[in-house]
Formats: sequence, structure tokens, C-alpha cells
Amino acid sequence: MGLVVQKYGGSSVADAEGIKRVAKRIVEAKKNGKQVVVVVSAMGDTTDELIDLAGEVSPVASGREFDMLLTAGERISMALLAMAIKSLGHEAQSFTGSQAGLITDSAHNKARIIDVTPGRIKSSVDEGNIAIVAGFQGVSQDSKDITTLGRGGSDTTAVALAAALDAEVCEIYTDVDGVFTADPRVVSKAQKIDRISFEDMLELASSGSKVLLHRCVEYARRYNIPIHVRSSFSGLKGTWVSNEQPDGQGEESMEQAIISGVAHDTSEAKATVVGVPDKPGEAAAIFRVLADFEVNIDMVVQNVSAASTGLTDISFTLPKSEGKKAISALEKAQGSIGYVSLRYDDQIAKISLVGAGMKTNPGVTATFFEALSNAGVNIELISTSEIRISVVTREEAVNEAVRAVHTAFGLDSETDEAVVYGGSGR
Amino acid sequence: MGLVVQKYGGSSVADAEGIKRVAKRIVEAKKNGKQVVVVVSAMGDTTDELIDLAGEVSPVASGREFDMLLTAGERISMALLAMAIKSLGHEAQSFTGSQAGLITDSAHNKARIIDVTPGRIKSSVDEGNIAIVAGFQGVSQDSKDITTLGRGGSDTTAVALAAALDAEVCEIYTDVDGVFTADPRVVSKAQKIDRISFEDMLELASSGSKVLLHRCVEYARRYNIPIHVRSSFSGLKGTWVSNEQPDGQGEESMEQAIISGVAHDTSEAKATVVGVPDKPGEAAAIFRVLADFEVNIDMVVQNVSAASTGLTDISFTLPKSEGKKAISALEKAQGSIGYVSLRYDDQIAKISLVGAGMKTNPGVTATFFEALSNAGVNIELISTSEIRISVVTREEAVNEAVRAVHTAFGLDSETDEAVVYGGSGR
Repeated sequence: MGLVVQKYGGSSVADAEGIKRVAKRIVEAKKNGKQVVVVVSAMGDTTDELIDLAGEVSPVASGREFDMLLTAGERISMALLAMAIKSLGHEAQSFTGSQAGLITDSAHNKARIIDVTPGRIKSSVDEGNIAIVAGFQGVSQDSKDITTLGRGGSDTTAVALAAALDAEVCEIYTDVDGVFTADPRVVSKAQKIDRISFEDMLELASSGSKVLLHRCVEYARRYNIPIHVRSSFSGLKGTWVSNEQPDGQGEESMEQAIISGVAHDTSEAKATVVGVPDKPGEAAAIFRVLADFEVNIDMVVQNVSAASTGLTDISFTLPKSEGKKAISALEKAQGSIGYVSLRYDDQIAKISLVGAGMKTNPGVTATFFEALSNAGVNIELISTSEIRISVVTREEAVNEAVRAVHTAFGLDSETDEAVVYGGSGR
Repeated sequence: MGLVVQKYGGSSVADAEGIKRVAKRIVEAKKNGKQVVVVVSAMGDTTDELIDLAGEVSPVASGREFDMLLTAGERISMALLAMAIKSLGHEAQSFTGSQAGLITDSAHNKARIIDVTPGRIKSSVDEGNIAIVAGFQGVSQDSKDITTLGRGGSDTTAVALAAALDAEVCEIYTDVDGVFTADPRVVSKAQKIDRISFEDMLELASSGSKVLLHRCVEYARRYNIPIHVRSSFSGLKGTWVSNEQPDGQGEESMEQAIISGVAHDTSEAKATVVGVPDKPGEAAAIFRVLADFEVNIDMVVQNVSAASTGLTDISFTLPKSEGKKAISALEKAQGSIGYVSLRYDDQIAKISLVGAGMKTNPGVTATFFEALSNAGVNIELISTSEIRISVVTREEAVNEAVRAVHTAFGLDSETDEAVVYGGSGR
């Protein structure tokens, strides 16, 4: 008997109605002869409300206690979901992350999964139950303390369980119909992608697409777990993320997709270290300083130095929220690094074109830049990988730029098909 | 170093302000050189809100999942309380019932504690932490499922931990200043009792006093753990429940208290089985039928039979909520038991006078009945134990009856001293 893991985000279980709707869908899968393991997030805004409460009682964010607090959210949603399933006449049992065998390191609030021992889940589904598992949480190997997995944690729980249970598929239910060729809120003619490779999905995720997080896709790729991203509000097929073609059409259709989609990201800022001596070790010195202050760097761009001065400029992008920390760290290190000045700009956007097909299709870069030029969008930085081209532009130009690129690569649908159903889960 | 267990109910931690106030009080105990273990209930109405949510998703009350759901409440309050303590500069760690070693049977929603293995709590306080433990919950020995202890569960958690940790005292913080000689909402001149024996407290608890539940007092008596019931809203001393005199005054002062208090209870109904053959086995047959339907019986009264008929009447009191079930069970068994008719009356009240001193003081019964008579209150049933007299009256007479008895035994204070601060916890 095949086993499927289904994951439902907070917006899918935001209220009693949502929980009942999700319960029906789960029961359908069970009726179709599958063993079903469900991973669920906290209801709607529960997590934010708990964070607010914590802020009211204490200005001190405490890792261990904060995790204890937040995990109450999934405990509520999973128990309610199990009850809703039982009221439909099927057996269900809920399990905490700890009970489900999600073993993590001790990094509270951002724990990493180091082992999955799903013995209780296996027994429960073998006895005919639907197993409901709290997403986002685990228990630390060393101290047996409750931990949380940080952003995108519930998706990662689902993929990790799917891998440990040798599931046929990990279905990620969300409030959109799948992964789109661009953000449907920006590009009304964005199309749902039927199939996408792990590699392209990884690039989209790290370029600003929010449907799946990089970490979850990376986990799925490592264990070769197909992900089916779909809506919990509609009955439509969503997007399959995998190495294989689930319908047996083979590699052909995937080869044909030169471009998977256009992603954009306005959460980053750009910093430039101006007048860096062009000699070995300079870049390393800069990024060591940033690493010591735990600044997350995204793009890094360095051009050839001006021959007259022997100085070069190094630019990088980073989360806006870490801008202050980064600039302060670099200023303190000016003496040791020996640069001339710093520039910081948080009015930028990053636009990325992703597609495994681009490496064998010359002209993609040219078409991309022409589309931006025709739309009057100026390019400030360029960075490429084998299957991605990213540019930095002014923030206010981002929507126009994304639409122009989407059209230029023939991604527009005939109609406005994208539907967004609710908020977003965690 | 002495160890104290403190328990705070839901009304004491109803909001962020309450949590911060409680945190300060806990830190005071720690500063006074004590090791401190805190048991906490869910915040204010959290439990009721969770029960409502469960009702929205499912008409089926499921034991296991219901317990999983409800225990989310303490998880929130305990984590917040630990954070609030840390923000005052002291170390605190929160623990679930399972982590704290509260091992129970598998009777979901009304589990019994069968073992307490507080190794993690002991280590935590030995390392200098304040340990915060979720009340009301445990983990089942057989299936390792989350359980809840039912009504009064958090008080029982506190006493059980106090016993297992060999605590000096178990402090039960609530929204009144202690145990009173009568319900302060009925008798404005009710006085706080400074000291009371386990036995008298047990009788008061089973006679309608709601400050401490019978189960918790019974546990404390068995392990001889002194309980100090006091307000979390005031700094006043409360009521000591123990076998010994904490101030070393010896037995004398306890002997002097002939009457501890007057309790009343309007949650019960009265049933009478009329015309029962007065022969061996009849009463047993009646109460076996009731036991089979899990009806909880309180008072049982049978008088001598009428010589002319050889028939007698048996009356008993039971929770109003179980009246329908009891009558239906008895009606079905009329053929086998052979009684004439049934009477059922849910407009009654029970008034009880409690005090270990009454057994050596003749005249208590007479004074009690005279007081009721002078107040024009008719007595319908009478039942006594060594240290308690209970009567059943009309429900509408209860307040007047309680006040009359309170005055007759000299329990009235000079002033209206009783203060009720909030709602009640669980």
C-alpha cells in the first residue's frame, strides 16, 4: 500500500471551517487506498499571536522557552484536525514532533533535523490510522528539549517524514494552485508550472519565489522525494517538483521548458565596498568580517579594477534586516581591510530568470536584457549561474520589469488564471 | 536548601500583566533562598476556548486528541512565565508534564497519577533554575500518550511534585485569600481560616467548598505535604492545611476550633426510590444498577421501614448532570429491584457543617438544627459523619440557611473581610 505525506499550511487550517475542509480531503486520500501521514502548521495567525504575547511578558527572547511557546500552535491544530477526521468516521492520531521522531540539533528557533525515527508514525498508519504530525518542531538529541525548525519548518518536516517513511509523494498544500512562472500578484498572466526540476525549483526559491523554501526543496532533492505543490482550496492538480516525470512522458517535456519562471525579491539591500586594493585576500577579509557577524550574503559582484588606481569595488546583496549590522561591522574593520568608502542602498529589487534549458540556448541573456531595456529598466548588478540570471534594479521598477521579462519569454497565458486564496502559512 | 512548590491557577496568569506579577512573586521566593518549582495552569479562558474550538470541528469527543489539544494551554502559560522570570534576571526552564515525570494511567481526560519521576526537575533546580511545570497533564505509562488529569488536575500536579521532591510546602495560589468559614459570596462576614486539618479540609471539599478539590487534599494527606492556600493578588498569609502547626503552637489551637466552616452545594439533585422491600440485598441492587451506569452517588439516607407494609424508602443525592442517566437506569431495573415508584427533585441544596471538634462537643447537632429552624428552613434529609453534619433543604433557602448557621456557631467576623479577586482556575 502506498504512503503519501500531506502538508497543510496555516492558511489552510485558519478556522474550524478550514480544518473540516482539510479533513475531508485527507479522508479522500485514505479512501483512495493510501496510507496517509499529515503534517500541519499552526492555525492562521496563532504563531504571530504567541510571539506578541511573548513580547508583552519579556523583552528577552529566550530560545528554549520561545520554542516551547510556539509549539503550542501546532498542538492545537493537529489535535483539532484529528478530531475532525474522526468525526468523519476515520481513525486519526496526532503526534508532536518529538513523538514523531523528529530529532534535531540544539539550535533553538532554527534547529536542523539530524535524524528521523518515525516508529510510532509507522505503527499508527499500519494499524489503519491517519497520522497527524505537528510541523515545524522536533526534540533535541542532546538535551531532549523541544526545538523549532525556523522558517519553512513545516514543509521540511513533511519532506523529512516522506523520506524516512519512503513515501510516494510529499504533497504540500497551500493557498495558491502551485508554482507559477512569476508571482501572480504582479503578473496576472502568470501560468501554473505543471512540472519543474529540483534544480530549477531551488533557483526559484533562492531568487524570491515563496511557494517552497530552498531548504525543503534541497531536502527533497537529496532523498529524491517528489513534491506536489497544490491548493487546499481547489481540486486542481498543482506543480510536481521532481527529477522524474510522474506521468511517464519522460524527459522530453522537461527539456522543452527553456525557462521555468521569473522570480523577484524586494527584501534585499545592496552594499558596495568602494576602493578595495585589487590583491589576493581582500575579498576574503571583507566576507570574513561579515560572516563573523552572521550576515547572510546573497549575490556577490566584483568587476575588473580600474587600471589607473589598482582599486576595485565589491558589491553584494544581503537581507535589508541585516543592513545595519553589516555596515557597522565593515566600518569597524576599515583599518584592517583598507577600503576607501562604503555605499548602502535598500531601494533595490532582484529579478531572476530561471531555467535549466538556458545553458543550451544561446540568446537567453540577450533577450532578458533587451526586455528590461525596452521597458526602460536600468540594470545595476548582474550575476549568473548555469541555470539562472539575476539582475538588480531600482525597487520601483520591479513590477514592470518582471512583466516585461515574463512576456518576452513567452510565459504569458491566454487568460488571467492565477488565483490566490488566502494568507500564507509557515 | 529548602524546596517549595508553588501552583498558580488560570485567573492568576490570565494575561501578560498577571504573568509578570506572578513572575515577581516567584522570584521573591527564590531570593529568599528557596529552590522553587512552579506548577501553572492555562491562561484565563484558554481551556474553554479550546473546548469551543473542538466543538466546532467535531461532535465526537475523543479522549486522546482532546488531551493533546487541551495541554496546549499550559504550554503557552508556562513558556511565557519562564520568559517573564528570565527578564527579571533569573534562570527558568519550563517542562511539560511528560518531561517533569508525571506518569499516569491511560484514562484520557481523567487520568490518575501512578508515578512521579522528577529527575529533570531536580537537575534543573539543582543547577539554580526555577522550574516551571505544566499543570493538569502527564504521559501514560503504557502508550506514552499525552493525558490530562481532569478537574483540579493542576493542584494535584503540584501536590504530587511536592511529595516526590520532598518539598517543605505546596503553595496553592488562587483568587481568594484562602479557605473561608463559608463561601464569601454568600456570607459577607465569612472569615479566613488560618489553619485547618487535612480531615476537615477533605470534608469541606466534598461538601461544596471549591477552593481545594478533594483529590488534591487526599494526595497531600497521604504524603503529609502541608498546603498553603493563598492569594496571588495580595501579600496576605492564607490558610495552612496540614497535620501540624507550622508556627509551633502545637495541637491546642486546632483543638479549639470546634467548627471549621459551613459549606454548601447546589449542584446536586435528590432521588428517592419509594417502596423498596425492607430485606437484605435491596440497597445493593439499587446502587449496583447506578454504579453500572457510572452515576456518582453522594449522600445516601434510609430510614426505618413502616411496620404495616414492610416497605422502606431510600434517598440519595447525585450530580444534577447525571440525573437523567440515573432515573433511566433505575426505571429499566424496576422489575428486578421491585420498588413502587421513583421521585426526582433537582431544586435542592446541601448544607454541611464541618469540624473535627464536633465529635467531642455535644450539642452541635442541636444548635445546627435550631439555627435552621429559627431561619424557617425545612430539613428534608440528614446525614452525618464523625466530623460533619449535612442536611438537604430547598435550593431557594440555601443562602439564608448558610448565613444562619454561620452566625449560630460564632463564625461571623467583626467586618466584611472576604475579597474575591477574579474568576477561578482549573
